[in-house]
Amino acid sequence: MNNPIGVFDSGVGGLTVAREIMRQLPGEDMVYFGDTARVPYGSKSKQTVLKYSKQIVRFLKTKNVKAIVVACNTASALALDEIATELDIPIIGVVKPGAKMAVENTKSGNVGIIGTESTIKSGIYNDYIRELNPDITVVSKACPLFVPLVEEGLLEDRVTDDIVGRYLQVMKEYKVDSLVLGCTHYPLIRNTIERFMGKRVTLVNPAFETAKCLRELLTEQGLLNDRKKKPEYEYYVSDGVDKFISFADSVLPCHVTDTKVIDIESF
Amino acid sequence: MNNPIGVFDSGVGGLTVAREIMRQLPGEDMVYFGDTARVPYGSKSKQTVLKYSKQIVRFLKTKNVKAIVVACNTASALALDEIATELDIPIIGVVKPGAKMAVENTKSGNVGIIGTESTIKSGIYNDYIRELNPDITVVSKACPLFVPLVEEGLLEDRVTDDIVGRYLQVMKEYKVDSLVLGCTHYPLIRNTIERFMGKRVTLVNPAFETAKCLRELLTEQGLLNDRKKKPEYEYYVSDGVDKFISFADSVLPCHVTDTKVIDIESF
Repeated sequence: MNNPIGVFDSGVGGLTVAREIMRQLPGEDMVYFGDTARVPYGSKSKQTVLKYSKQIVRFLKTKNVKAIVVACNTASALALDEIATELDIPIIGVVKPGAKMAVENTKSGNVGIIGTESTIKSGIYNDYIRELNPDITVVSKACPLFVPLVEEGLLEDRVTDDIVGRYLQVMKEYKVDSLVLGCTHYPLIRNTIERFMGKRVTLVNPAFETAKCLRELLTEQGLLNDRKKKPEYEYYVSDGVDKFISFADSVLPCHVTDTKVIDIESF
Repeated sequence: MNNPIGVFDSGVGGLTVAREIMRQLPGEDMVYFGDTARVPYGSKSKQTVLKYSKQIVRFLKTKNVKAIVVACNTASALALDEIATELDIPIIGVVKPGAKMAVENTKSGNVGIIGTESTIKSGIYNDYIRELNPDITVVSKACPLFVPLVEEGLLEDRVTDDIVGRYLQVMKEYKVDSLVLGCTHYPLIRNTIERFMGKRVTLVNPAFETAKCLRELLTEQGLLNDRKKKPEYEYYVSDGVDKFISFADSVLPCHVTDTKVIDIESF
């Protein structure tokens, strides 16, 4: 089926998920939307994140997408289940694939989850993990300073080391051996996190698992696009095209030129 | 005139301005709106901040306010001038009063401005200051990590000291003796900033100057409310009542009970 995949995020972070989809599903076209006018979602209520996500899904439907990927952990945690019940096309988020991988990787039975305040408060990673294996101990921790530190470019910095140490000390205490990077920005400070946690702890990047899960889903439902032509990518944001393009160029394998601003509140 | 003052901000920070108005104008009623669903404004474009500010002004007008205070530095910098031309009631922001005080305080002729990315990029503090005195050198610096550090509660912390030192080193190099805290959150790390800059540097808090300026304006226009009854305050937000109330209780002299969520996109 030749229609594009719709991917959305609260801002630019979801491009790390888009990148994995480009790598693992090179035959698929994609429409990406980043809600850069209302970013971040991670400190906002379920009601608001759900309302914003519904507007975005309505916008993506106007682009005739055949499936939707919620690349934002917070929106996956707070909005996905309710949206899925109302939608006539497949939709997947990043939480379930991340939770599944964390469970497969742990030997100690202690799994860690880090994410935004709203993702952690939702408790959804815990619910999925306990569904998969009720014997697992889940240690979760909100890390609200990670996104601003990444956006300020302090990927390798003594301040980031210091903050990582404070947030993740509890993960060491609980002898976590599988840690989910439950926010799209966190893989960008993967090295700092690994330095603190040590190499024996598996860091799970839900972006990679989600792209794998999307391939399986499209295959099962006969929706895979296996044309041999060059894929087409379209980008839409609610604010700040230049800032978006500059971030996109640092993350994506291809140069982004055509990005349009849309009035998401009107959807 | 008995109608209330309208005060708005991108979120909770503007409560520091509301507090000054309560102190300096104890006879006035107030309607406060915090755009907690779309916070922060400091990284967003002029177009978006203007659109949001116009929606809020339309909402405040439904509350029959007699004057509006833009408590947010970013909205004052990016939206105030355009809104003022379309409005039939007085409106003031925090930028002009802050700029005026900075100019009055400097002896070295070197004034510093710190604020959000969008406030600094707008160059509006520089414009106002040069209008008042073209001989003054203005040194401006965006400090995007200050708001997240304050919101994480790291008011007195080695990390905040470290970041303050990096951002403000340039202020020392230029021998700034008057520094405007050009974002409503910054007065909350005033001690850390003072420790780095030294006691000889005057830290200008636009909240205080704005309340003074509002009193002058209301007096001039015969709008002052000098009833002796207890003032009434109403609070509205676009998201997260509980979080708002908890912050408000830490800032305001009175306990906030009645806060309503409104759908600001519909205005």
